[in-house]
Amino acid sequence: MPLSTRLTEMLGCRHPILLAAMDVVSDARLTLAVSRAGGFGILGGGYGDRDWLAAQLPALRESDQGFGVGFITWSLARRPELLDLALAAKPAAIWLSFGDPAPFVDKIKASGCRLICQVQTVAMARDAVAKGADIIVAQGAEAGGHGDARGTFALVPAVADAVADKAVVVAAGGVGDGRGLAAALMLGAEGVVLGTRLYASQEAAGHDDAKARMVAATGDDTVRGLIFDISRQNLWPLPFTGRCLENAHSRRWSGRELALMQAMGEESKAYQAARKKGDFDVAAVIAGESVALVHDIPPAGAIVREIAEKAEALLAAGQGGPLARR
Amino acid sequence: MPLSTRLTEMLGCRHPILLAAMDVVSDARLTLAVSRAGGFGILGGGYGDRDWLAAQLPALRESDQGFGVGFITWSLARRPELLDLALAAKPAAIWLSFGDPAPFVDKIKASGCRLICQVQTVAMARDAVAKGADIIVAQGAEAGGHGDARGTFALVPAVADAVADKAVVVAAGGVGDGRGLAAALMLGAEGVVLGTRLYASQEAAGHDDAKARMVAATGDDTVRGLIFDISRQNLWPLPFTGRCLENAHSRRWSGRELALMQAMGEESKAYQAARKKGDFDVAAVIAGESVALVHDIPPAGAIVREIAEKAEALLAAGQGGPLARR
Repeated sequence: MPLSTRLTEMLGCRHPILLAAMDVVSDARLTLAVSRAGGFGILGGGYGDRDWLAAQLPALRESDQGFGVGFITWSLARRPELLDLALAAKPAAIWLSFGDPAPFVDKIKASGCRLICQVQTVAMARDAVAKGADIIVAQGAEAGGHGDARGTFALVPAVADAVADKAVVVAAGGVGDGRGLAAALMLGAEGVVLGTRLYASQEAAGHDDAKARMVAATGDDTVRGLIFDISRQNLWPLPFTGRCLENAHSRRWSGRELALMQAMGEESKAYQAARKKGDFDVAAVIAGESVALVHDIPPAGAIVREIAEKAEALLAAGQGGPLARR
Repeated sequence: MPLSTRLTEMLGCRHPILLAAMDVVSDARLTLAVSRAGGFGILGGGYGDRDWLAAQLPALRESDQGFGVGFITWSLARRPELLDLALAAKPAAIWLSFGDPAPFVDKIKASGCRLICQVQTVAMARDAVAKGADIIVAQGAEAGGHGDARGTFALVPAVADAVADKAVVVAAGGVGDGRGLAAALMLGAEGVVLGTRLYASQEAAGHDDAKARMVAATGDDTVRGLIFDISRQNLWPLPFTGRCLENAHSRRWSGRELALMQAMGEESKAYQAARKKGDFDVAAVIAGESVALVHDIPPAGAIVREIAEKAEALLAAGQGGPLARR
């Protein structure tokens, strides 16, 4: 029996599973694959590239699937007109993460869209709900890409206690399989966000070698910090840092971030070249700690269905003993 | 119905809930209170103070309760004779954390004790199991006190996948209520460790003002780092850092750890004085992110029973929807 929560009711999807709005990686193809499988796909609008958005949105608008469009909030504030472009495609939700959602709330609500705000602390959750968020994604530090310091396990129940009477709480960061979905529901969330696990899917618009490195990684070998942002000369505002797989470049500069900034003249050129040719000993593979649970690169729809089914089975069994023994 | 797992069977306790071996705070009184309530108390032998151990162990030995004795492994290696002192009190388990358990395994096993090893990575879990650990505590970065960087939510299933066929896996770090126990069981653990939540109990041998600060804290205001260790001139070996509540002292020195070391002449005296008089604007209150879930200071037994009952109810309900709505 599908797991029905306020999240699935609000977004009209079958499974309480959201695609993380991974910048560029979550393109229209991946978004549709997730929605078709019963999850809820969210286009990774990221920093906001008008041409890319204009190329991706028609396929979503013309589909019969529910979908969302996600932005990096502090970046959208520099190009607020891109919100109009997104809303014109009739998404069911707008996802805003990393910054103040206030300037965008009225327009989103007026369009009939749901507002999903991703937050990293209890204080941010309270603030986003006060400003009108319908859905709060509580993102723990385990997550790949940008985030903050609090861990998913204690953040989710604390956010639920703070705002679940006014908004739907969803867990992000560290979810990689059906155990994670079942655990998130026990912690008080009504669904989960999948980033890393869906990056390692057939449809994700990422480099094949990056996906292969995710399959090979253990989860002990990711690192949160600023080396990636410094190297590509895109330092985010406080309090955000980024999590990636460790590689030769991150090991070389770990603890030497200021020296890396001093060396930017040469290092930034080398880094750009590495990104271009897919040299992941230098370029970062953005991944979270759930990479430990990634062992293959299946179609995204198969991932969504398997996670939903496993969680349903775990919750239906409903007993710790036999469950724990699997 | 009590949650029966391999953990409860192995340790002969009613609930799959262990008391964290908090140095000195987990004294004989707290240990017995947890065991009497159906959990499994573990004495916080910590760094290893012979006089303190000699004073605490008789009450445990003379009780009819199962209990464990915990040590900081790298510290025990300097005073290995303290293991004999602990084993003479006939504990059901020895808890070793932070260091190589190998030198102690044979003696522990020969005594008939179970060996609990707390680890912070999948690699450490594999190593501890290869050396003979019966129980692996997978400790996430949310935990109070010393630990490492990986988050509980993705660490627990990864450790379970790596070693659950050879050892019993228990989750630590971020567990503060019944939701956490239920979630840990879903993630593949067979029990949980409570530190912070049981520090904020009547019986814990901690300062009343420290407990009051835990009740007041939100969970957003803990910080992991080295300021505490530097300030008390007790720097731990790599990779360990410590999590405490933020206070005026940690905010003053955050990001200026080397300067703090340079200022140790004066600062260490001031810090010692603050510890002595219980001035927690300077002295650290050791607490994890689950402090967000701490709202009172009840008897330890009430905490154990309430968490077990809440988890049983959540697992029995066995459905995400109604659960999520509580």
